[in-house]
This record gives sequence, structure tokens and C-alpha cells, in this order.
Amino acid sequence: MASDLLPVEEARARILAALSPTAAETVALPDGAGRVLARPVVARLTQPPADVSAMDGYAVRAADAAEGAVLAVIGSAPAGRPFAGRVGQGEAVRIFTGGFVPDGADAILLQEDAVAEGDAVRVREAVTPGRWIRRRGLDFAEGSEVLPAGRKLTARDIGLAAASNNPWLAVHRRPRIGILATGDEIALPGDPIPPGGIVSSNAHALAALVKAAGGDAVVLPIAPDDTAAIAGVAATAHAFDLLVTTGGASVGEHDLIQSALGGEGFELGFWKIAMRPGKPLIWGRLGRTPVLGLPGNPVSAMVCGVVFLMPAIARLSGLPGDPPPTRRVLTAVPLPENDRRADHLRSVLSVDEAGRLVVTPARVQDSSMLATLARADALVLRAPFAPALPAGAEVEAILLAELGI
Amino acid sequence: MASDLLPVEEARARILAALSPTAAETVALPDGAGRVLARPVVARLTQPPADVSAMDGYAVRAADAAEGAVLAVIGSAPAGRPFAGRVGQGEAVRIFTGGFVPDGADAILLQEDAVAEGDAVRVREAVTPGRWIRRRGLDFAEGSEVLPAGRKLTARDIGLAAASNNPWLAVHRRPRIGILATGDEIALPGDPIPPGGIVSSNAHALAALVKAAGGDAVVLPIAPDDTAAIAGVAATAHAFDLLVTTGGASVGEHDLIQSALGGEGFELGFWKIAMRPGKPLIWGRLGRTPVLGLPGNPVSAMVCGVVFLMPAIARLSGLPGDPPPTRRVLTAVPLPENDRRADHLRSVLSVDEAGRLVVTPARVQDSSMLATLARADALVLRAPFAPALPAGAEVEAILLAELGI
Repeated sequence: MASDLLPVEEARARILAALSPTAAETVALPDGAGRVLARPVVARLTQPPADVSAMDGYAVRAADAAEGAVLAVIGSAPAGRPFAGRVGQGEAVRIFTGGFVPDGADAILLQEDAVAEGDAVRVREAVTPGRWIRRRGLDFAEGSEVLPAGRKLTARDIGLAAASNNPWLAVHRRPRIGILATGDEIALPGDPIPPGGIVSSNAHALAALVKAAGGDAVVLPIAPDDTAAIAGVAATAHAFDLLVTTGGASVGEHDLIQSALGGEGFELGFWKIAMRPGKPLIWGRLGRTPVLGLPGNPVSAMVCGVVFLMPAIARLSGLPGDPPPTRRVLTAVPLPENDRRADHLRSVLSVDEAGRLVVTPARVQDSSMLATLARADALVLRAPFAPALPAGAEVEAILLAELGI
Repeated sequence: MASDLLPVEEARARILAALSPTAAETVALPDGAGRVLARPVVARLTQPPADVSAMDGYAVRAADAAEGAVLAVIGSAPAGRPFAGRVGQGEAVRIFTGGFVPDGADAILLQEDAVAEGDAVRVREAVTPGRWIRRRGLDFAEGSEVLPAGRKLTARDIGLAAASNNPWLAVHRRPRIGILATGDEIALPGDPIPPGGIVSSNAHALAALVKAAGGDAVVLPIAPDDTAAIAGVAATAHAFDLLVTTGGASVGEHDLIQSALGGEGFELGFWKIAMRPGKPLIWGRLGRTPVLGLPGNPVSAMVCGVVFLMPAIARLSGLPGDPPPTRRVLTAVPLPENDRRADHLRSVLSVDEAGRLVVTPARVQDSSMLATLARADALVLRAPFAPALPAGAEVEAILLAELGI
């Protein structure tokens, strides 16, 4: 029966192949952090705009500044107030970090290597030509690309875009992700819980995951297990770049989603994925809106969120949508041979005395246990049919903090 | 002269010792991600609320379910719709994942180990008592603490708080951080640039850093190098949990800030820190508002932001304010012996063929180069007087992506 299970990588590749980045919008510089550039940022000026001093001291002609020489101080050049004159033979100009190097000078005598003597300065240590001068354009030149399209902007990038005189940025619009939880048995926190029911946790946990991935989450009201109710919500799918459903992805429930969405002109794919937790997945398109149906089990929903939804949001945001980054870490305990499903062991991270990262999978990996998921720092990846490993062996793990979740 | 330089750790410890967490506020569950709990989250229900099935199958009495036995199916128990009756001898109830285990049953016969025969089911594989049953309270019990105070909430925690029926969360208020850039020579991006001036990048880069650290940033208008202007802004400091200035922290400029803030009843500390880049730092208190003065050099400002400001915001947010997390990585190139200043080498990260993280420090570490900072993935830490290291040696590095900047 292995043939009816889709490998994780293939499912993710099919999802990503069906998605394209959102259109560009213009945002003000301060709103750019965390967004993905739709167009490169080009420097609108040269930085530094002229040769400037890298230190506090004196702008001099290196040929004059032998040890013991005394130079006449003819002016000063603090940052932002260039000295208008020219440094002639036997002359110096007091200069500060970032000050423009005046005409005639070709080196900076450090403050600590100089002794001020009234209107003159005595050289305590000779300087070489070019010393402590930052050349014009050292950082960037006008017209050069300082940040490429497709880059997710950091705080440092915001600084670079500002310094290169860009008040506006062209970025991909944040993907709008509709989230629809279905099920007769679920209620929102604080609402009355139906007999035998449980409190819905998926929609808001997934909304936080969507936000961490750079999307805007729209949590839709819970839909009961009822064709008309689900179809009614589905009719609004055009408002979203991606509609995520949760619940309705097990074998029987799948038929309900199928028939509810079928009336909306939907061709639905239903995949059983070779993974644990979270094997069933719905994938299709409702009009122009892609639909990702996650399992109703909360742990499965979050793990599938990491494995499929976060890359999908990255792709919609203008990024490649790479698989979640993994690190090689050491397992604290022996791991049994794996079966045909890729496993994602909820694990706690620690650092051993040698500074290496060590993972300890939770003893009980029951996919209903949200407390175990919340306490986990990592998902240890076990490939299909991975051999047994002794304690201390290297394994690949997704570190959840690196995903911001 | 080493004695006049304050070690990084001591400066950070003094800053943290002067700060306390903001007061608590109530936020709705969906707004809780990334916030720090001011009070524990306590489960308002038991999950699962009863013994439930972990799989699709049949609820049976294990004593009856020998291989080949045929049991009468007397009803069904899907999730959310408990079966009201009792499973007697020779009887079974169709059950689905999450369905309550009916009275009388003590095990689940898996669907794949059963053959439906009209109103009966034939057992293909015997079951043991308790098999595939999730016990009441397996995840959490009513009244138990599911998330402790002081925890920064993840998307998974939001799921756990929801599942335990908590629509509201008590979290620390986001710290409000005022950011004041000073200097005659700086202009905002797109504004006219004064002769010899540069475009201000610090305020907006720091604002993005503040946001990444969980604070609310308020960027104040640029203040010229003028006592009255700086004093005017300082008079509004009470609106902030922390006022950050940038510029005015070099030796000469420090006097200006000192005299400008002095009129506001400010006792100002001025520290030269044993670090590179970014040695001068202002630290003090204006009324009840702590003030952190960062260097005007943009690279120094950001590195000091990582080293001092992010831990300060963490402390204000209700976290301990630990030093930035570091990882042991390998240096791709030999590193020279370090001098008395802790160095923070802007470095690019890569992964070698063995899956290990490798850092390559930028060849030119000039602290004016924003493009180098933007391209960096890591700050390699070099302790004061650290010995020379060969290529391939282990070093400690701050990975900037882990800080979200």
C-alpha cells in the first residue's frame, strides 16, 4: 500500500508549483522590515559622498607629518561641516570622524598620536598616505543595487535602504490567508462547548503561524459539518491568496468537504502523505484561489503548517518557498528504525558541555498532545525507513524558534 | 588605559539591573503571539475530557475481541457525538478518532484489523485492554498550569491556551521605546541633504530592531546639535519606557547631550566600553525614564543595539534579558590575536559539506560600511585578548536571523 502515499517532498513541490508571488505594493521605509522586495533597492547617492576621516584627529599632508613635526592648524572639519579651504605645506585641519578630508590633505594624524600646541599640532607618530581615510563610495555608489529583488528585509537592510536615500520600497503584498475551521464538535475559547465537544485551537494557532511566516491571517467563523455552511464560506474564497481549512481531512470527513466545495466548481485533490503526524491533506483550487486542507488534529495541523503552509506563504510572499531549514544535531536517546512515513518527533533542545545541540524526543509522541508540542523546541526528522540510531548519533531537526513559531 | 574601558558584560549587567518589566495588560488570545505572559495560563478544562479513541475503529471489550470473534455493532461514536449506551458482552460500537470511549468498552479494535459484516464486525487481530485509548487528561487537567508566567508565547502556545479554553491572556505591555537621532548633518531619506551631510539611517534601522525585539518604537523628529532642541525632546521622555538616542555619544558630542539633558535634571553616565565597533555609550535616567545613548556610527549603533538594546527590551518585556544567544561555529579563515576590545566581526554564514556552520568574516570590518553589515549573517565574537586561531577553529557567533534582525 506504500504506493498510495505521497512523499512529503513531492506534495510540497506540487503545492509550490501552483503558487505565484503576490503583486507589488509601495510601502514607506519603516514598514519594510520583514517584507520581501519586489524590486531592487538602488542607491540614490554615493556613500561616503567624499573621502572622509575614519577617526578623530588632523587632516595632514603625509609628506609633512614626520615624527616631531609641528603643523599650523588652519581650521576644522567636523562631520557635516566641510572645511572650505585647502591644506598647504606645513598645515593641518582638525577633523572628526565622518568629516570630509579637505583638499590638499592625504592622511589623518590620529588625535592620540598628536599634541595640540595652541594653534599648532605636534606629530608624535608619522603617518602614511591614505591612512585613516575612508574613500568616496567605500560603502556604496549612486546607481548601484544595494538590495536585490526577492530579499526579505532585515532591520539592517532598512538601515541600508535609508542610508542610500530610499524613503519608499516596492515589496510584495502580504499574502492574505483565510483560515476555516470546520466541525460540529468544536467551539471557540470561552464559548459554550457542545456535549462531547472540544475547544477549537487550530484556527488561532495557525493564524499565529501565518503571521510568523509573513502573511495576513483572516480567521473565518467556525463552519459546522454541513455542506451548505462550508459552501457558503467557500464562496468568499476569492478574497484570499490561499484558503486553509482545518478539519475535514480524514477519510470520511474528506467527502463532506469534497461535496461542499464541489458545488463551487472545485476540483479537489486528496492526498495521503507519507508522514506522521498529519497524513491526510487536501489540495486544490477554488476558482483562482488555492485551497490547502489540513488535518483537524491540532498537532498534525501545526506540523503540516510547518511542512507545507509556511513554505507556501513564503512562495506567495516572493521567496522561493524552501523546505523548513534544518540543522544537524545529536539525539540524546536511541531512535528506533522508522516505518514508511517521514516522522517529525517533537523534541526538547539542550546544549551539551561541548556546546553541541542535543535533542530529546518526547517519550510519548501522541499527536493529540498540544502540551508536548508547546514544550517542544524542535521537530526531529526521520526519513521513511531511516535505520535505528544509537544515542549520540547525528539527526536533522527543524528548530521551531528559527521559524518564529 | 585598559582600566577606563568597561567590559561588555558589566555594562549590560548594569543596564539590566536598572530596568523592570512593564505592567500587565489583557489581550485577546489572537494578539498573544510573541508577547510575554505576566500571569500563568491555567487550564479551564481537562483534555481529553474523557477517555477517547486515538484511531478510527471499534470500541470493544478486550476480553471479547479474540481473533475471529464476531461482535454486534450497536451504535457509533464519532468525535463530538458520544454514544449514550453501554457496550455489553459480544458488542461493539463504531468509533472515530477523538470519539468518547463508551461505557463498558476498554479497548479499540483498529478499522484495518476489522471486517464489517452487515450489523456486525469480525475481529482479524486480537486487542489488549487499553489499546488505542487516550486517557482523560492525557494532554492537561483542569486547574493545571499549562504555560508559566514569563514565557514568550509561540504559535503553539496560542493553540494550547485556546485548547485549554482561555480567550484572554495577561501579558506585559509592549515596551515603548523612544528613538531620538541627533546631528546637524543628518536628513531623513528623501529630504534635502545639507552640504556635507548624510542620510539618517539609524533611527529607522533601530526602530525595526526594537520591533523585532518585541517593543513599540516611536521615532522622534531629528534633533539638531543644539542644547534647546535636544532638551525639548528630552522633556517628553516620560512617555517612554526607554529613551534611545543615537549620535552624540562620541567624546565631544557627549558634552552636548550632557548639557542638554542636564537641564532636565538628568544625571548622565558616560561609558567607554571595551568593544568594537561601538565603544562609547551613554547610560542614565531622565526622571523615571532610563536613557541609552548609542553611537552615531550606523554599524556601531546596530551592534550596540544587538548587544545592549535587545536585552534591555527583553527585560522590559518581562524576559530575563539574557545576552544574545550564540552558537559555536567554525571560522573559514585564520583570525588574528585580539586586542583589549571585545570584537564583533561581521561575517557571512555558510554550511560545509559535513553540514557544519562556517563563518567568513568580511575582509574589511570598517564600522562605516552598512552594506557589509546588511550582507552579514553573523557577528563572530572575539573576546578581549583572544588568541589567534587557525582556519577551521571553533568560534562563538551571534546568528542575526535568530534575533529576527
